[in-house]
Amino acid sequence: MTMDHMQIINQHESEVRSYVRGFPTTFAKASGSYMYNTEGEAYLDFFAGASVMNYGHNHPKLKKALIEYLSDDNITHSLDMASVARAEFLDTLDRLIFKPRGMDYRVQFPGPTGTNAVEAALKVARKVKKRDTIMAFTNAFHGMTLGSLSVTGNGFKRQGAGVTLDNTTHMPFDRYLGPDTNSLEYIDRMLSDSASGIDVPAAVITETVQAEGGVNVADLEWLKGLEKLCRKYDMLLIVDDIQTGLGRCGHFFSFEEAGIKPDIVTLSKSLSGYGLPLAITLIKPEHDIWAPGEHNGTFRGQNPSFVTAKRTLELFWSDDRFEKDIARKGQRMAEFLEGLAHKYPNARGCPRGRGMMQAIEFGNVELAEKISEHAFQRGLIIETAGTDDQVLKLLPPCVIEDDDLEKGLTIIEESLVAAMGDLGISAQKAS
Amino acid sequence: MTMDHMQIINQHESEVRSYVRGFPTTFAKASGSYMYNTEGEAYLDFFAGASVMNYGHNHPKLKKALIEYLSDDNITHSLDMASVARAEFLDTLDRLIFKPRGMDYRVQFPGPTGTNAVEAALKVARKVKKRDTIMAFTNAFHGMTLGSLSVTGNGFKRQGAGVTLDNTTHMPFDRYLGPDTNSLEYIDRMLSDSASGIDVPAAVITETVQAEGGVNVADLEWLKGLEKLCRKYDMLLIVDDIQTGLGRCGHFFSFEEAGIKPDIVTLSKSLSGYGLPLAITLIKPEHDIWAPGEHNGTFRGQNPSFVTAKRTLELFWSDDRFEKDIARKGQRMAEFLEGLAHKYPNARGCPRGRGMMQAIEFGNVELAEKISEHAFQRGLIIETAGTDDQVLKLLPPCVIEDDDLEKGLTIIEESLVAAMGDLGISAQKAS
Amino acid sequence: MTMDHMQIINQHESEVRSYVRGFPTTFAKASGSYMYNTEGEAYLDFFAGASVMNYGHNHPKLKKALIEYLSDDNITHSLDMASVARAEFLDTLDRLIFKPRGMDYRVQFPGPTGTNAVEAALKVARKVKKRDTIMAFTNAFHGMTLGSLSVTGNGFKRQGAGVTLDNTTHMPFDRYLGPDTNSLEYIDRMLSDSASGIDVPAAVITETVQAEGGVNVADLEWLKGLEKLCRKYDMLLIVDDIQTGLGRCGHFFSFEEAGIKPDIVTLSKSLSGYGLPLAITLIKPEHDIWAPGEHNGTFRGQNPSFVTAKRTLELFWSDDRFEKDIARKGQRMAEFLEGLAHKYPNARGCPRGRGMMQAIEFGNVELAEKISEHAFQRGLIIETAGTDDQVLKLLPPCVIEDDDLEKGLTIIEESLVAAMGDLGISAQKAS
Amino acid sequence: MTMDHMQIINQHESEVRSYVRGFPTTFAKASGSYMYNTEGEAYLDFFAGASVMNYGHNHPKLKKALIEYLSDDNITHSLDMASVARAEFLDTLDRLIFKPRGMDYRVQFPGPTGTNAVEAALKVARKVKKRDTIMAFTNAFHGMTLGSLSVTGNGFKRQGAGVTLDNTTHMPFDRYLGPDTNSLEYIDRMLSDSASGIDVPAAVITETVQAEGGVNVADLEWLKGLEKLCRKYDMLLIVDDIQTGLGRCGHFFSFEEAGIKPDIVTLSKSLSGYGLPLAITLIKPEHDIWAPGEHNGTFRGQNPSFVTAKRTLELFWSDDRFEKDIARKGQRMAEFLEGLAHKYPNARGCPRGRGMMQAIEFGNVELAEKISEHAFQRGLIIETAGTDDQVLKLLPPCVIEDDDLEKGLTIIEESLVAAMGDLGISAQKAS
Repeated sequence: MTMDHMQIINQHESEVRSYVRGFPTTFAKASGSYMYNTEGEAYLDFFAGASVMNYGHNHPKLKKALIEYLSDDNITHSLDMASVARAEFLDTLDRLIFKPRGMDYRVQFPGPTGTNAVEAALKVARKVKKRDTIMAFTNAFHGMTLGSLSVTGNGFKRQGAGVTLDNTTHMPFDRYLGPDTNSLEYIDRMLSDSASGIDVPAAVITETVQAEGGVNVADLEWLKGLEKLCRKYDMLLIVDDIQTGLGRCGHFFSFEEAGIKPDIVTLSKSLSGYGLPLAITLIKPEHDIWAPGEHNGTFRGQNPSFVTAKRTLELFWSDDRFEKDIARKGQRMAEFLEGLAHKYPNARGCPRGRGMMQAIEFGNVELAEKISEHAFQRGLIIETAGTDDQVLKLLPPCVIEDDDLEKGLTIIEESLVAAMGDLGISAQKAS
Repeated sequence: MTMDHMQIINQHESEVRSYVRGFPTTFAKASGSYMYNTEGEAYLDFFAGASVMNYGHNHPKLKKALIEYLSDDNITHSLDMASVARAEFLDTLDRLIFKPRGMDYRVQFPGPTGTNAVEAALKVARKVKKRDTIMAFTNAFHGMTLGSLSVTGNGFKRQGAGVTLDNTTHMPFDRYLGPDTNSLEYIDRMLSDSASGIDVPAAVITETVQAEGGVNVADLEWLKGLEKLCRKYDMLLIVDDIQTGLGRCGHFFSFEEAGIKPDIVTLSKSLSGYGLPLAITLIKPEHDIWAPGEHNGTFRGQNPSFVTAKRTLELFWSDDRFEKDIARKGQRMAEFLEGLAHKYPNARGCPRGRGMMQAIEFGNVELAEKISEHAFQRGLIIETAGTDDQVLKLLPPCVIEDDDLEKGLTIIEESLVAAMGDLGISAQKAS
Repeated sequence: MTMDHMQIINQHESEVRSYVRGFPTTFAKASGSYMYNTEGEAYLDFFAGASVMNYGHNHPKLKKALIEYLSDDNITHSLDMASVARAEFLDTLDRLIFKPRGMDYRVQFPGPTGTNAVEAALKVARKVKKRDTIMAFTNAFHGMTLGSLSVTGNGFKRQGAGVTLDNTTHMPFDRYLGPDTNSLEYIDRMLSDSASGIDVPAAVITETVQAEGGVNVADLEWLKGLEKLCRKYDMLLIVDDIQTGLGRCGHFFSFEEAGIKPDIVTLSKSLSGYGLPLAITLIKPEHDIWAPGEHNGTFRGQNPSFVTAKRTLELFWSDDRFEKDIARKGQRMAEFLEGLAHKYPNARGCPRGRGMMQAIEFGNVELAEKISEHAFQRGLIIETAGTDDQVLKLLPPCVIEDDDLEKGLTIIEESLVAAMGDLGISAQKAS
Repeated sequence: MTMDHMQIINQHESEVRSYVRGFPTTFAKASGSYMYNTEGEAYLDFFAGASVMNYGHNHPKLKKALIEYLSDDNITHSLDMASVARAEFLDTLDRLIFKPRGMDYRVQFPGPTGTNAVEAALKVARKVKKRDTIMAFTNAFHGMTLGSLSVTGNGFKRQGAGVTLDNTTHMPFDRYLGPDTNSLEYIDRMLSDSASGIDVPAAVITETVQAEGGVNVADLEWLKGLEKLCRKYDMLLIVDDIQTGLGRCGHFFSFEEAGIKPDIVTLSKSLSGYGLPLAITLIKPEHDIWAPGEHNGTFRGQNPSFVTAKRTLELFWSDDRFEKDIARKGQRMAEFLEGLAHKYPNARGCPRGRGMMQAIEFGNVELAEKISEHAFQRGLIIETAGTDDQVLKLLPPCVIEDDDLEKGLTIIEESLVAAMGDLGISAQKAS
């Protein structure tokens, strides 16, 4: 078949398509930290499917488990009937993740995408508290279906709803009001005053690092304070750990470091480990007041996803080696970005991040996108984030080899210099 | 591993789980029209994953294509970047489906579940018409995320939202007001009168057969009339073909027979053919006014699903043999149910359906569930539908062998007799 | 002062002004059934301030009571503190109205306009039933503030809201679906089916005759049936008697003839009897669950209105003479309109009404407005109603002298003939 | 008649009644700054009908004008038809108020209560900007109908709605976040960031002093800054001047001092001058895009109110004597409260106000209500404000005689001392 793939896509796919515009090549294969286009050209992947590929593309052991499962005619789709793969995943999750962390959650399979998990979380929270509003944060991103979109900050996405997005209260995230203002005090003030016009919500939904919103990192103290606020006002705490969890920020759950105990947690993206759709909503047993079938969905029984998901738990979360490796590489990334900011003062770089989600915002709002373009030409896939795409976001697979990590960082530096040149900014180094 | 799968599920999975309660066994394998539990017991599948398995479980040719794709390290997850598998699926869809039917649709990948496809449809419709309400029908089922739920009729599911479901107008479906009342006249009256309190909606969303709602079949004339009404009031027509399309009701699109041209169509369930998540929203080019990235989602680049989806098109939709086969078997199913109703007058059975979605409602509201229980004991998986589960719904794989079909029908009859016995209804045959 | 009043109004008043456009003269004085402009020209008033002047303009006995009250420095404004006038009004209302009818209502003073009374009714109904939707009818008119507007049918007025009007369900009024269809059966069907998408509302709000909506008269049996439906589904019944009550339709309450017992009743317009603002919301004691001050408003203590309101009760409602007089004159009006329709078949007149709210709809949608114009030129003020102002609405003061009534009817006939001429319709009389 | 008025009221009026509970006596007469109960006991009125009686009770010149108007059978109720009284009021308003202040407003008569005026303001603002949200402030009070309630802060009142109050954004009022934080910076931050989740509203509605909310005084610079923010984000500025305007805060409009030019202004309460219902919404001509009749209401033609309203303009607003008098007395009130706070340090009084709306908040939240009770026993009517009624609010008629003012202030001090005694707080004076 000699058709032009890109032409087909441009002709038949909706205008809504987006990444294909920024990374205009047709991918054919992938392995570990690399993607390959139809010409066989390799692209180092510092995007990792927006954190779907934390364990790298087509991990051989996951692939083996998956193909074996399929080859033996094990059941593929089983709605929410019992299956061996489902039970084994649940058991492994409990054994390797919940128990060692002293956690107790009921697992809901709300449909295999992140937004399904968020919608289920919002629904059960409202059901538990019998209140209708949810508190969400500036720059939050939780998904594109109507409930999730209503707790998302991005105005461009919100306008896509075509209806008023109500039943939510948007509050300033950590540091949103500047480094010296604690946004929790503002929230506390608004909630404590029955005449503020802000009705006490059923729940607060937050990310620990706002990934899409510009890699805004919540301080651990802020997270603790937020949990306290939830207890004070009898609101549930929902942590949307879809992009930040599963190792990306250093641990299985990104909130572990803060020592908080969310009432509800959403996971998806890297959950299956192999890029297959899977999502879960974790609910504290006392809040698991769903009636049978009150929330359902067709693809709640994705056995191939259960199989690879279970395998990732065994491979990466049986001991702390993976976490230590992330810590080491995350620190390397952070130091690199610190160095970069220091080395090229005219870029006015502001680095930040947690674990292997590291980012740098530049003084010139166009710089990050230019870097992404130059990097692509040099064989590196790297994304931008933030309202104006002003933040360069480094999301390599957590399993990336050290050499490849260095290779990517080098390309980033080269691309920065080139991008500064494009924009007429002197790339003179700090003395 | 000798754990008790069912016990694990009961302990760790949320109370929201449902089918596992009605079909309490742990499935391990599946093939064609059969599912097998851990004991190796076979269950004939007249449920087919709620129409996900139209082509049967683990179809060997699809499996082969899938394993080959995986084995060669072809790319698995690619967000909405270009991939060979994506392009080939789009091209095949255009070549084998749209072109022969004189259709022209842009394809949106809104996330791989039905509710994602519906949400995207509602959003783009509101964006196109700059109006906020959507008209939906009594007993409609469109999904569990907030937008889809607002157009769903089921009160039990609606209450799960925890918020008022607004921006929708619920109108009577075909025959809802009885056989002699044309509900379109009522709708026309309400829309034509600017003082009715019913604001003209952006779009009407409908199923052609309300599957979850009780297998309520819309007359072809009614569908044509509905399309006319949409044109008259400048509303978009959205057909949710998620459960009814892809052969289930006899054709690729369930609305083909009616000769209507919906502005937007949603497809999912059997789309990948192999039980893998996949969903698309088809939009007439003139309505494809999305801005890039205005709706997005993580799992829009499910290459394994593209691979099997493309293969189903080649295998089943290159000629009309599959459609003829469905017509034949569907007719057999319909005749069987007609016969059953006639044979056991005390069951007061009311059969109906289209293609291989056939159903029978009984006078005694408990009968259908009892039959389902008895059938399960006899090795047949069969579902109920309707608000009170009063409808027995036959959804065998469309590829079912004739022998298996007959076997299933026989079990149904046996189960009916047994169920009538349970309920103290005489199963005396009509003379 | 020789300023041009009309010019001042056109210059300084908002574009929203309306009646001044249809009746373009400046009124100076008024008495009984007549209004007088600055030139001293008399206008016979068949509009009666949209039923505010049921007892005629500046009734001498009411005027006397009012001026006496004012002259003696009795208190004018007292919020909701106790005042003599307030207590006497409440006592008289109980003594002359509630007691003789076997009624027991608590009286809320929600602010002195009709829409205030409706808003209070909706709020307390939702509070009682803890549900959020209200059922309202096609062509209903209940007011212009957001809550009242949401239960109003008129699309032009609804668009003025600028927001989606939610939490309401609009259902067909009596005869809306034609003379042979009982709309209650439709409503019953929708409510009885938990999957209809129509959630059971807190209350149903209705008029007994839709005055603004085109003088659509609800059959007494329909009202009884509606009450039954309310009991069946545990919904409160709210009768908005603002335009229809206080004698207009023949009795103090327009629903008396139907023998129903609404849970909540709203009254305003002619309540003060003298054109002064006053409104009350009557609530059955068991539903009077307001917390003190939960609804408030500045003008709840309109003592001048209490004084004249009390006086009207004494003057008109101490015996049944007023009701008998209304019955007699209402019948004369009805017969006149029947005769008119018969006499001028080309006008295709369709008369209807109850008590002294009588109206006629014409085949030609422009005819009613033309008649109103011609009548104005002949010294008669008469309004149109309905979405397209296609209905001529006769609302003379209920106290109108027989001679004046005949005079008005004669002008109507003359104006009809003239208007038919304008529109090129033959005014040939039936043989 | 020897009935017990209070008993009648308690028996027949709804539980919602409130002031009658705090001031439990039956009023019969009123004059100037005094109200008299049925026993002839005089009460000095420091409440003034919540600022309805700025010109005192039953002002003789207004009474004369009113009785003359009524006696001559001038028209009372005229909907929105032209009347002499209406034109004269409009002309006088333009001549004495708008022109001297260089203002140009169209006058809408939205119904004669404050909440009607607010509802009209919100509707036209949304219509102008084609956006659905309105920004309102913490502790704001704008009325009890659904639209006005949605922009009101008070949680107790909001819960009365029974539905979610949406389409609004509540922001911190001046000094709400403490004396050192400029809430406008917060608002600016939220609006400037398209990803804050706060959609740019159609308009901002504010009071200049939050009367019901606790007499929170907006700094003039804050008001100027708010106007600038409105221009920056293309939002309309609505000033609700219902309680603060018409002299109460020192000028006809309370915002005159700040030198701002609101797009829309609402006035009511003291507008008629005599306690009769009247309300207007002032709209800049370029925003007066109403269609005729798009908002209506029965009592838009309250000629008695027009007559007294016009007379107040002539009597009080023809020169600056009234304003100077208010300034002088307001200063006296402020100094008195400052002195009181200083004299009784244990009361921990925090005085504030503008013009003749002066208030004092106490450290002990029960003190204000206790003072009100003691004052009532001493023949002084005085109200509390704020969420917890923690603020004592002094609203004497603006025309109060100096002697009466001093008499009231003396009672306040006595009552404070008594109240402190009740609560076991030492009333020891500062040395």
